[in-house]
Amino acid sequence: MSLQIIPVHLSKDVTPRDDLVELLLDTKTGRRLKDGDILVFTQKIISKNEGRKIDLSKVKPTLFATGIASAYSKDARIIQLILDETKRIIRMKNGIIISETHHGLVCANAGIDESNIEAGFATLLPKDADKSALKLKRRIKTKTGKNVAVIISDTFGRPFREGQTDVAIGLAGILPILDYAGKRDIFNRILRVTAIAIADELCSASELVRGKTLHTPIAIVRNYKFDKKNGALKDLLRVKALDLFR
Amino acid sequence: MSLQIIPVHLSKDVTPRDDLVELLLDTKTGRRLKDGDILVFTQKIISKNEGRKIDLSKVKPTLFATGIASAYSKDARIIQLILDETKRIIRMKNGIIISETHHGLVCANAGIDESNIEAGFATLLPKDADKSALKLKRRIKTKTGKNVAVIISDTFGRPFREGQTDVAIGLAGILPILDYAGKRDIFNRILRVTAIAIADELCSASELVRGKTLHTPIAIVRNYKFDKKNGALKDLLRVKALDLFR
Repeated sequence: MSLQIIPVHLSKDVTPRDDLVELLLDTKTGRRLKDGDILVFTQKIISKNEGRKIDLSKVKPTLFATGIASAYSKDARIIQLILDETKRIIRMKNGIIISETHHGLVCANAGIDESNIEAGFATLLPKDADKSALKLKRRIKTKTGKNVAVIISDTFGRPFREGQTDVAIGLAGILPILDYAGKRDIFNRILRVTAIAIADELCSASELVRGKTLHTPIAIVRNYKFDKKNGALKDLLRVKALDLFR
Repeated sequence: MSLQIIPVHLSKDVTPRDDLVELLLDTKTGRRLKDGDILVFTQKIISKNEGRKIDLSKVKPTLFATGIASAYSKDARIIQLILDETKRIIRMKNGIIISETHHGLVCANAGIDESNIEAGFATLLPKDADKSALKLKRRIKTKTGKNVAVIISDTFGRPFREGQTDVAIGLAGILPILDYAGKRDIFNRILRVTAIAIADELCSASELVRGKTLHTPIAIVRNYKFDKKNGALKDLLRVKALDLFR
């Protein structure tokens, strides 16, 4: 059966006062949710909805942040936010800061972002995007009776390859890794090590219908069979001891 | 408009004697190709079709390969194939070999694979998957009159995150990176650095309908708007000098 990736257009910019599920259910596509749909929300609207929007005029950079900012020709207040969100700096070179966030995500600028927000503001990643996803999933169940999975998606760069792709930063109602270990291939040979990060692939697929300049912060993936156990972001994060690049 | 990802089932295992385009056009979905469709082929059938299948009994490992194999408890003939396909070893630790192939791809085991092939054999990556893609694209045009894009996809691991995802290793008729530089966001602010690796996202989306144990080596992505200029794998490969992780 063919997979469908359906964009959901919201008519307004999201604020902390909005009920995201109401906004979703107010759309034509949102009204037609089905059991087994996977809803992929962009990080940006979750962050805005949860008040993770920072007024830069209120950020007081330390001397340390100011030093980095001047060496990197960047805004010291943004550097300060990056440092606040960072557990460990992974690389700092060529004007790029790759950090491991408190959530364990490895990404540029600790996920701090100044796009799609008013000048003078920046967004931080949600505090706990698994929790955000679970809350949305439960509220959708309450309001519609439908059992859906929810994934929160963000756009990250990666080593070795140009361009960014969307990956999951939080999820509920879906196991993020599809493990083929022990299964047999078409020659009846045991597949030994293939484990697919389907949550990341679902985020990438959803990015294709969203675009970065449009009012399309949600996508619905329909007709995908998945394991409905409750997974978590940590299933997707390689622990440092097993990572050859940290 | 919603995106469709359509699996194409082939009824037989592919050999060098097969005409891949004939096999495709013999299927129900293949007969209904449309202008603007994106066809994603797995590396495995391209490699098999192009004779990149190696009889391991004919591989004579060097002493160097035998040494690595014994330290890693692996087949020395597989190690020999990996070394043959490798330009530069990036990491070699915990029984894992990450190499940069002659194509410039950074991946485990230089893309050598023993799954979905008879025991005693292994597949190498296609020699030039851009060329493979262009050949398929042209032949589809000749046989059907339809203008499609073709991407060759493979399943790679990545640093920092668990699980593998599909990425492009060759393409024709599509620009693999969608560059938002200079475009404006919903607040009319210039988006500065976002460039999306859509070719990789298309491969990931296609992986979702394929599975690893099924006879589904091709997927069609329909309703995706893209730039039909001829891109190349090298657009997706970060040059070593700009890579913080090599």
